[in-house]
Amino acid sequence: MLKFHHDFSLNESPEHLGLMDKAYNAVKEENESGQIGYYRLPRDTLPMVDEVKKSELYLDSNIENIVVIGIGGSSLGIKAIMQMLPNQTTKPIYFLENSDPVNISQIFSKLKKSNTAFIVISKSGGTIETISIFKTALDYFKIDLESTDAKKIVAITDSGSSLSKFADEYKIAQYNIPFNVGGRFSVLSAVGIVPLVLAGFNATAILNGASEFLESFFARKEDHILRKALYYTQNADRQMINVVFSYASNMENLSKWYVQLWGESLGKITKTGKKVGLTPIGLIGSTDQHSFLQLIMEGPRDKTVTFINVENFENDLKIADISLKHIEKTDFINGNSFNNLINSQCDATKESLVQSGISVDSITYDKVDEENIGSTIIYYELLTSISGVMLDINTYNQPGVELGKTILEKKFK
Amino acid sequence: MLKFHHDFSLNESPEHLGLMDKAYNAVKEENESGQIGYYRLPRDTLPMVDEVKKSELYLDSNIENIVVIGIGGSSLGIKAIMQMLPNQTTKPIYFLENSDPVNISQIFSKLKKSNTAFIVISKSGGTIETISIFKTALDYFKIDLESTDAKKIVAITDSGSSLSKFADEYKIAQYNIPFNVGGRFSVLSAVGIVPLVLAGFNATAILNGASEFLESFFARKEDHILRKALYYTQNADRQMINVVFSYASNMENLSKWYVQLWGESLGKITKTGKKVGLTPIGLIGSTDQHSFLQLIMEGPRDKTVTFINVENFENDLKIADISLKHIEKTDFINGNSFNNLINSQCDATKESLVQSGISVDSITYDKVDEENIGSTIIYYELLTSISGVMLDINTYNQPGVELGKTILEKKFK
Repeated sequence: MLKFHHDFSLNESPEHLGLMDKAYNAVKEENESGQIGYYRLPRDTLPMVDEVKKSELYLDSNIENIVVIGIGGSSLGIKAIMQMLPNQTTKPIYFLENSDPVNISQIFSKLKKSNTAFIVISKSGGTIETISIFKTALDYFKIDLESTDAKKIVAITDSGSSLSKFADEYKIAQYNIPFNVGGRFSVLSAVGIVPLVLAGFNATAILNGASEFLESFFARKEDHILRKALYYTQNADRQMINVVFSYASNMENLSKWYVQLWGESLGKITKTGKKVGLTPIGLIGSTDQHSFLQLIMEGPRDKTVTFINVENFENDLKIADISLKHIEKTDFINGNSFNNLINSQCDATKESLVQSGISVDSITYDKVDEENIGSTIIYYELLTSISGVMLDINTYNQPGVELGKTILEKKFK
Repeated sequence: MLKFHHDFSLNESPEHLGLMDKAYNAVKEENESGQIGYYRLPRDTLPMVDEVKKSELYLDSNIENIVVIGIGGSSLGIKAIMQMLPNQTTKPIYFLENSDPVNISQIFSKLKKSNTAFIVISKSGGTIETISIFKTALDYFKIDLESTDAKKIVAITDSGSSLSKFADEYKIAQYNIPFNVGGRFSVLSAVGIVPLVLAGFNATAILNGASEFLESFFARKEDHILRKALYYTQNADRQMINVVFSYASNMENLSKWYVQLWGESLGKITKTGKKVGLTPIGLIGSTDQHSFLQLIMEGPRDKTVTFINVENFENDLKIADISLKHIEKTDFINGNSFNNLINSQCDATKESLVQSGISVDSITYDKVDEENIGSTIIYYELLTSISGVMLDINTYNQPGVELGKTILEKKFK
């Protein structure tokens, strides 16, 4: 279960409440018309779990490592989920994404062909980092596509893409992403589910958690999303930075997933030519209390802060009940659990922000499990879609990245 | 060697140029009066390198792992440096910093007492996470402070602090931080240098790189720092976010170090009661071209962007010269080095931003080595100090974090 609480107050005028209904209806229409596909992923991807479990690669007992070759929406969601469930797999997933030669070489050196599954993910099929690294991996590991080596490869891409045609050509296992699902909304499609199942995660529970939350939203039982989106978008000109402060070390990659989703979806030019956008920042508590907190407290009031905490880490490590000469000052927490300390730190920081008049809200996990992770993914995707409607932008494209790609091609051609 | 280039234009009026001289003189005075101590660290910490190399712990051939127990300014700088020099040590450094029980337990489970050095770092001596984790480690690893176990511990703290008195009491090796050096400016003091030397890094070269850059600045040969700080502070009301976009996977921790330095130093209430501050964001290229770039390009024009790139990664991994059926579209870079690809991506992204009228500057490493890392540290520290003078704030305190600490104590007492 996730609990949501808002410490900011919304303008409750009929006009404002009407904006919420309007955005809800727009998103409902996106779903029902099939224009936008991610709403259907939690149900539609379920059969794929069993499909993967019957695949030759899943059943191959030699496989000990998974490599995902993919970048952006093709890696961030998988990384987020696996980091939050550190004890749910015995097969590590490695990521080849950046075009950094040091990074690629480091990962190559840890792997060998005989026990590795190679998953290449590109929605368009033409991502320059992904295809370049994939080809280099074929060369480095001496993978012969005409041999049984091809069975160790999986392609995840749009049906009919260049990568899809390549997979057909070499009889490589292939899973497709629905056309109406964008990269940053794709973690609950084959993009996330296939690697997670191959690595041994309980993807069914993630999808079920997502489904339940989605149904609850469309049953108007999660209207806090509408209220938060309205608050954020109505205040976008003065509170243009949205900080997510997660009190769990293992939520660092969840932050990165959120940063892509929020930043790339909402940073847009409106139909009337205005540049809008909300800037996402991910922090980890308590660590970043020693870094970024000062700026939130005393810097310009241009930030909202969402606190995420976990009520029960299911780990009972306690602060040793030892008093050491001269450093008795912190003895007042002796014998308490770290679980209690980190949650108290979250509460204390939140209260200090609320007292200072900063707009705060909270998401509380009862525990970190697959269902809650699935719910969190859908929560943020819905919040993004609703905010996009309210900002009157196209939430699902990314035209701003094209100029750099064109300039890059000119440097080589 | 680092090269600096600015793609923004500064108001060159005599009044503006006068502001640069004024800030330079204020920083010079901070240094010469001894009010602020970090300017002297590159020279003053040098003798400590040999001191550590003569220590019993350094000479103990049983030590295979280093654990740093410290948070914020007591860990971020060390993590930044070690990540950038992945091949310079055989002794991994682990970090116990967050009060997250899952994270602490994970790290504990990787270590054993017999081959581990425990370095506890707290400037004040009373950091709640650090002291709590330290006591819990004593208990977990059954470390007896009255036995030879104490020889495996090092304390790094202010002279006379509670932790310093504790170390004296139990005859634990101790290195001190100068009083006039704040936590986030302390990486070139004992805080960074002792763990790095114990792990086998060439700290002398880091300090020398820092020294040379510092001397060059005070000889007025690095006035680009004054110009950049002036541009940033003069435009703080409309460009309040400063993005550092590093094209190297191993610079992720450098970004985190920068975020603390910049955010905690410059997020302040001025003497006249105004809340000022510049918000730091760290990105990694090319990865974050697939995440945050869209927002920079098409979102509000509230960001400056600093590109960091490495001309020569000293790694000749090449994109395999293979053409695969149907995915020939990216063949135009076949045979090029990844070194060339990532630098071309950096250039292309930078050009796309410049063409779009976004304020950009660049820092170019000829290669990643100790001297360049030392220079980078001093560069950012000087940029922060100069900006602080120009914003008319106290750069070196952090009063905003106290309220949360007070609320936390009340929860337990």
